[in-house]
Amino acid sequence: MVLSVIGAGKVAWHLSKRLHACGLHVRQVYSRQLDKALQLATEVNAKGINRWEDLDATGVDLIIIAVSDQAILEVAQQLSRQLVHPPLVVHTSGSSPLSWLSEALPRSGIFYPLQSFSWGRVPDFTTIPICIETAHPEDQNFLIQLGERISHQVRLTSESDRKQLHLAAVFVNNFVNELYQIGAEILAEKRLPFELLLPLIQETAAKVQALPPDQVQTGPALRGDLSTIERQLDLLEAHPDWRELYGLMTGLIRG
Amino acid sequence: MVLSVIGAGKVAWHLSKRLHACGLHVRQVYSRQLDKALQLATEVNAKGINRWEDLDATGVDLIIIAVSDQAILEVAQQLSRQLVHPPLVVHTSGSSPLSWLSEALPRSGIFYPLQSFSWGRVPDFTTIPICIETAHPEDQNFLIQLGERISHQVRLTSESDRKQLHLAAVFVNNFVNELYQIGAEILAEKRLPFELLLPLIQETAAKVQALPPDQVQTGPALRGDLSTIERQLDLLEAHPDWRELYGLMTGLIRG
Repeated sequence: MVLSVIGAGKVAWHLSKRLHACGLHVRQVYSRQLDKALQLATEVNAKGINRWEDLDATGVDLIIIAVSDQAILEVAQQLSRQLVHPPLVVHTSGSSPLSWLSEALPRSGIFYPLQSFSWGRVPDFTTIPICIETAHPEDQNFLIQLGERISHQVRLTSESDRKQLHLAAVFVNNFVNELYQIGAEILAEKRLPFELLLPLIQETAAKVQALPPDQVQTGPALRGDLSTIERQLDLLEAHPDWRELYGLMTGLIRG
Repeated sequence: MVLSVIGAGKVAWHLSKRLHACGLHVRQVYSRQLDKALQLATEVNAKGINRWEDLDATGVDLIIIAVSDQAILEVAQQLSRQLVHPPLVVHTSGSSPLSWLSEALPRSGIFYPLQSFSWGRVPDFTTIPICIETAHPEDQNFLIQLGERISHQVRLTSESDRKQLHLAAVFVNNFVNELYQIGAEILAEKRLPFELLLPLIQETAAKVQALPPDQVQTGPALRGDLSTIERQLDLLEAHPDWRELYGLMTGLIRG
């Protein structure tokens, strides 16, 4: 399997490196910024380019678009203009429709890794769910095989399921991380180090790996400990938004 | 060091077992329910009791009150009535004042392990911060030494710092767990298994062990991706409380 990658951001970076490490051949890496394209290309033994006219799809089985959601449509149109016989083209976004590709290109699909990628951290790809969707059923097997080269968790996912997964991911990743940040700021007010919360954060995530979250919940809201809740709301007096959040979450936990 | 434990709930259970495993002698375990007292007592080679008149503090260096916050005051008063020469008495609560003990007893303190304990999970005690406070400075060393027998993270903590820690713990533990639960329910609507989110949950917690949360945030809110935010709010139309939470968290992330 030979593929090319459009984008040199976090998803493009981690996905390309993983595909390369699993023996896939990455032909070209495109980025508007040549230095970024070259940097990633060097990592995966590919050619880095920043001009569409340098894109060469001859012998390429797949083009992976791993750019920001807002840029997907434009890239699809660019590929359609540039390539006489475009190969299968996928994007990697949880929330963008397949139609952004399928309206411009003959063969298209989704290759969405359900994970949050960061610079400087190599995630364990084997456990990452890879959600696959294609415009034409005959392209499914190719993407499934590709997914299984890099992960044990490949599944066909409808657009509506994928959007639901992405929504849930925003809650358990972005919103959870914001709660970590609020925790850090609450401690910083008393010059207490964020590190004090790390074992608790670790344990909270570890618990739900084995037991469903509603079975491991604890704390004043669950116990209906109104006097603790009142005292904690008082502590949040200077932060109306955190106070509002505290009230809302407490209500959700109390059910 | 010889100690007795009041309570047989999750904190009493895990703390007693850890103290016993670290070579401390647990003399008696009191619970209103005799079967619970006996069950924990058997685990730590102690005597289980459910009548206050059976409490024997002779030769006991410390009594640990590990009961629900609402019961602490009543237990302290009970100990004061029952014991002619009460030893040092501590409670294990993050949010309850020391005064609930110190007004009834001559020597009192706090021994607060900053962790969320669950049945059937043995946490790694060595990393759990143990927050210590005493009514009299001469009792500090005893509690510090005790703490250091079971954890590497012992610190003297003022009441106001401890309350702040407990507040932050509610955000990063109870509220985070509720977000996991909402994630599970969002997936359940499409009959998607919660397990799909586990690698993401794990990675989100793992990231902040090394980097501060504001440096690893990702997602539509951080990117200011309003069209994705709009579409996700639409998906939440049937859940006004989740929708409100989504709007609030998104606003907090956008800053």
